[in-house]
Amino acid sequence: MASADPLIDQVHFDEQGLCPVIVQEEQTGEVLMLAYMNETALRETVDTGFMTYWSRSRQQLWRKGEQSGNRQNVQSVRIDCDGDTLLFVVQQEGGAACHTGHRSCFYRQLEDDGLVNVGEQLFDPDEVYGGD
Amino acid sequence: MASADPLIDQVHFDEQGLCPVIVQEEQTGEVLMLAYMNETALRETVDTGFMTYWSRSRQQLWRKGEQSGNRQNVQSVRIDCDGDTLLFVVQQEGGAACHTGHRSCFYRQLEDDGLVNVGEQLFDPDEVYGGD
Repeated sequence: MASADPLIDQVHFDEQGLCPVIVQEEQTGEVLMLAYMNETALRETVDTGFMTYWSRSRQQLWRKGEQSGNRQNVQSVRIDCDGDTLLFVVQQEGGAACHTGHRSCFYRQLEDDGLVNVGEQLFDPDEVYGGD
Repeated sequence: MASADPLIDQVHFDEQGLCPVIVQEEQTGEVLMLAYMNETALRETVDTGFMTYWSRSRQQLWRKGEQSGNRQNVQSVRIDCDGDTLLFVVQQEGGAACHTGHRSCFYRQLEDDGLVNVGEQLFDPDEVYGGD
């Protein structure tokens, strides 16, 4: 893939050094998740071709799929008009992006009777991550 | 549309009272933009059926399309697994979401020779917003 430099020149990382990243599945166009990258994660992602984020909860690099095997293979990356958001199109290995086993993290939709689970469940998180 | 309450109960607004919002076009599946909502903007959006954001640069409610006419008509809204991002599917009036006149704010893609404009330009921003 290309060098990350032209992208990093244009990204406005926030005061915590992070940039939100939208992840979209290539085949279906489905929005899978939103996560954050710092400069190191962005450079590693472009260099390796697999999505690496910055985990805000764990305060460390998060190589997506390292534990579950569900890596995300980068197909393309775009930057928005004001340089503060990235959009990655990926191939999702294993089909599920969400740690709950759903294809997309956005599996709950607002309906007349509240939030309804409309997502597809592809694996049992207890089996993938262990139940304890 | 439904009441906003079940959604607002689940959204974790950040320390500035904001939540990032991904906007996807219904017909094409294209990701148009990312913006932010506070609770007031989210409630107004669900109640009116048209996207209202919180403008971080202007520090005020931003009723999308108020000036350009390019409003965004809400089709559905989903919340992610940890409740810190929303995904709205919309019909984009006028076809262009970006203030630059492009269909999507994500019109620059990283290629081997740098960032390349791959977006569709639908209007001239000087004509819509005035040139001065």
